[in-house]
Amino acid sequence: MAYQELKRACYEANLELNALGLVIYTFGNVSAVDRDRGVFAIKPSGVDYDALRPEDIVIVDFDNQIVEGNLRPSSDTKTHAWLYRNWEEIGGIAHTHATYSVAWAQAQMDIPIMGTTHADHLTEDVPCAAPMRDELIQGNYEHNTGIQITDCFAERGLDYREVPMVLLGNHGPFTWGDSATKAVYHSRVLEEVARMAYLARQINPAAPRLKEALIRKHYERKHGRNAYYGQ
Amino acid sequence: MAYQELKRACYEANLELNALGLVIYTFGNVSAVDRDRGVFAIKPSGVDYDALRPEDIVIVDFDNQIVEGNLRPSSDTKTHAWLYRNWEEIGGIAHTHATYSVAWAQAQMDIPIMGTTHADHLTEDVPCAAPMRDELIQGNYEHNTGIQITDCFAERGLDYREVPMVLLGNHGPFTWGDSATKAVYHSRVLEEVARMAYLARQINPAAPRLKEALIRKHYERKHGRNAYYGQ
Amino acid sequence: MAYQELKRACYEANLELNALGLVIYTFGNVSAVDRDRGVFAIKPSGVDYDALRPEDIVIVDFDNQIVEGNLRPSSDTKTHAWLYRNWEEIGGIAHTHATYSVAWAQAQMDIPIMGTTHADHLTEDVPCAAPMRDELIQGNYEHNTGIQITDCFAERGLDYREVPMVLLGNHGPFTWGDSATKAVYHSRVLEEVARMAYLARQINPAAPRLKEALIRKHYERKHGRNAYYGQ
Amino acid sequence: MAYQELKRACYEANLELNALGLVIYTFGNVSAVDRDRGVFAIKPSGVDYDALRPEDIVIVDFDNQIVEGNLRPSSDTKTHAWLYRNWEEIGGIAHTHATYSVAWAQAQMDIPIMGTTHADHLTEDVPCAAPMRDELIQGNYEHNTGIQITDCFAERGLDYREVPMVLLGNHGPFTWGDSATKAVYHSRVLEEVARMAYLARQINPAAPRLKEALIRKHYERKHGRNAYYGQ
Repeated sequence: MAYQELKRACYEANLELNALGLVIYTFGNVSAVDRDRGVFAIKPSGVDYDALRPEDIVIVDFDNQIVEGNLRPSSDTKTHAWLYRNWEEIGGIAHTHATYSVAWAQAQMDIPIMGTTHADHLTEDVPCAAPMRDELIQGNYEHNTGIQITDCFAERGLDYREVPMVLLGNHGPFTWGDSATKAVYHSRVLEEVARMAYLARQINPAAPRLKEALIRKHYERKHGRNAYYGQ
Repeated sequence: MAYQELKRACYEANLELNALGLVIYTFGNVSAVDRDRGVFAIKPSGVDYDALRPEDIVIVDFDNQIVEGNLRPSSDTKTHAWLYRNWEEIGGIAHTHATYSVAWAQAQMDIPIMGTTHADHLTEDVPCAAPMRDELIQGNYEHNTGIQITDCFAERGLDYREVPMVLLGNHGPFTWGDSATKAVYHSRVLEEVARMAYLARQINPAAPRLKEALIRKHYERKHGRNAYYGQ
Repeated sequence: MAYQELKRACYEANLELNALGLVIYTFGNVSAVDRDRGVFAIKPSGVDYDALRPEDIVIVDFDNQIVEGNLRPSSDTKTHAWLYRNWEEIGGIAHTHATYSVAWAQAQMDIPIMGTTHADHLTEDVPCAAPMRDELIQGNYEHNTGIQITDCFAERGLDYREVPMVLLGNHGPFTWGDSATKAVYHSRVLEEVARMAYLARQINPAAPRLKEALIRKHYERKHGRNAYYGQ
Repeated sequence: MAYQELKRACYEANLELNALGLVIYTFGNVSAVDRDRGVFAIKPSGVDYDALRPEDIVIVDFDNQIVEGNLRPSSDTKTHAWLYRNWEEIGGIAHTHATYSVAWAQAQMDIPIMGTTHADHLTEDVPCAAPMRDELIQGNYEHNTGIQITDCFAERGLDYREVPMVLLGNHGPFTWGDSATKAVYHSRVLEEVARMAYLARQINPAAPRLKEALIRKHYERKHGRNAYYGQ
């Protein structure tokens, strides 16, 4: 019965990923962390969303050891573990192969901040981390994927609390947030922002980034000290 | 029990916005006005459409004072108030972040009138108001957003009774009409017109605007003194 | 009770148009003809598909006189009448503002025959009739729309029995067939063919038209004297 | 009662094709083979998916002779027979006119391997076989279509066990796998990969193919001797 609540939260967030149309088949996974116990719950590898049950969720610690569960955890588990270990305020992580997000990743380009929909959630372009060097791919791949993400943020001086999403070049998006639900929310927002930026650039290849005053205004309406959006 | 009918009209128009796929999460809002009482009903800020109840709708006057309601009104309330105050024949206003409409706004381009679908509803390109000057953004932002819209119409000599929609540069669309339902209708039509113009220009970048005779014919079939469309 | 069967066929084909996602609101209409009685059934003007009832369908003769019905017929009725009068083997006609079909019409371009999906249905590019001359628009517009279509076919030497669809420049598609159901089928096929040709040209602007041997083979598998497709 | 299980497997895979949105009307077919008996089950020609019943499925041998069934088999039956005869480890075959897959076929271009979604399933670009020579089209067309596919694989040195999909130039995709269900799965994956590559190239026409180390890593995570994806 241990971890029942954590498994349920992880289970529901995984179903939400599917219900939002962000994944086909088993192309994605969500995890939810319990900081007090030093473990996280994650989707089992290769299990269809339709067949997934709360008790199938696997509990893993930050050293990638299975704490509870009969199934093999997601093949991306080590990436989640690295992010939880390094970014201490994250409560949940989502990974998808959502179409427009992946398209930008395959284009190896940051998603430029083009409008207020983007600025309502973050003040930066969505970073696209470069594909890894060959020796890192051939080594501990999923662990190194986590390092690739945190290195990208370190090099660019980005704060994971303010930029809750990244594209892995040629792969796809990882998003996070206070909870698994919030991580899924950021996957959905990212997909929409990716689609809007794609279309805007198709209409007008010279369309500029959003001006700084609008970036600040929209972000602070929702996130700043004097935020006045929501209840 | 006061304002019950007004709240109900506003509530249903907000649900319609969601049912038509024009919004995700809380990215939009609809209001409905009662001219006799000098108030309008508007969606509360940041409340999910799935959770929204008629009694959650907030009643506000044209000076942005809450007349009735326990929740904070939409963060865009001042824009609605300004438009109601200045454009006296409007009955309802809708704001969305619908994908193709936003894409044109992010491209900072008017949507050219390319076909009869567009001319069935308006005879002009859909205007895209320029992003605001920084001091207006940093000031009373949502109020100034309203001014930006009415200034755009004044400068271009447009009549809000004939052009029931506008794009805010880098932000997204506002639409209006005799009622909240009609405002939502115009949001849906705008999204379709935005998509058609996008595709037409992708197919043929040199495709011309619709000829004047067809613009007049189609608009007057539906809206002119001798309209013969509908019952 | 007269015309009950004809109205039912027309009603169901109109609902199918909506169910297939080819129209929003009231942006389309289907008619079904009874050659023996010299009348056709057509959707009433501006009535929502959700509210439409079989008894609302209007019966009109080829001189555009209402034979039975309490509602005003579709504003495009005269176009239907002209086509029925001139093309004697047509059993039904459909008109939509479906997105990709309209996009090609707004681009004022024929849809090139690019693949076997197209050739399974017709051996020619989908013709895009030029927008009408101003005096024809300002005159008996819907009647002249019909003439514009038949003139286009005459000038190009096309046979309406082999090319069951046309685009009106800057407006949208008309399709037809042995029955109202078949006319709707052709609207759906046209929309798919329009989308495939759009995408193929975006991927490879130099992509050639389908070679003649494949055009003939695929058309004749389904339509020739020795057709062997279907039961 | 013979072949009941085989017909059921074929029937369900055909319905899945439809449920996944990969076909409209009758534009596709799936077959399932029974190697021990030297026959395969295939969809009857031109029957709507909504009307299809398990007992409608036709049983055919590798010489295209009907073994059981009252309906005419798919017009593409000879293509299936050729592939089963030549590629001895295939358990099922699917053919669709899915939109993005067809668009690349109409563009007459291989789908470049641009990301890990692609590499999770195959290590090569999706091959686009050239349209056939005229005498092959005018001859035993569907049989020759099979030859066109196996010749394409032979010329390029591709192994059908590692590349479970092909585009026929100007026509559309054929996919296969251990079972009919797996063939349909590959049709769905192909459509997604086709869409992602299309969008990536629209965003960045110079976007490179996926680097070799990532191709190998992702393919071997799922398919190699040391695969660790799934349960």
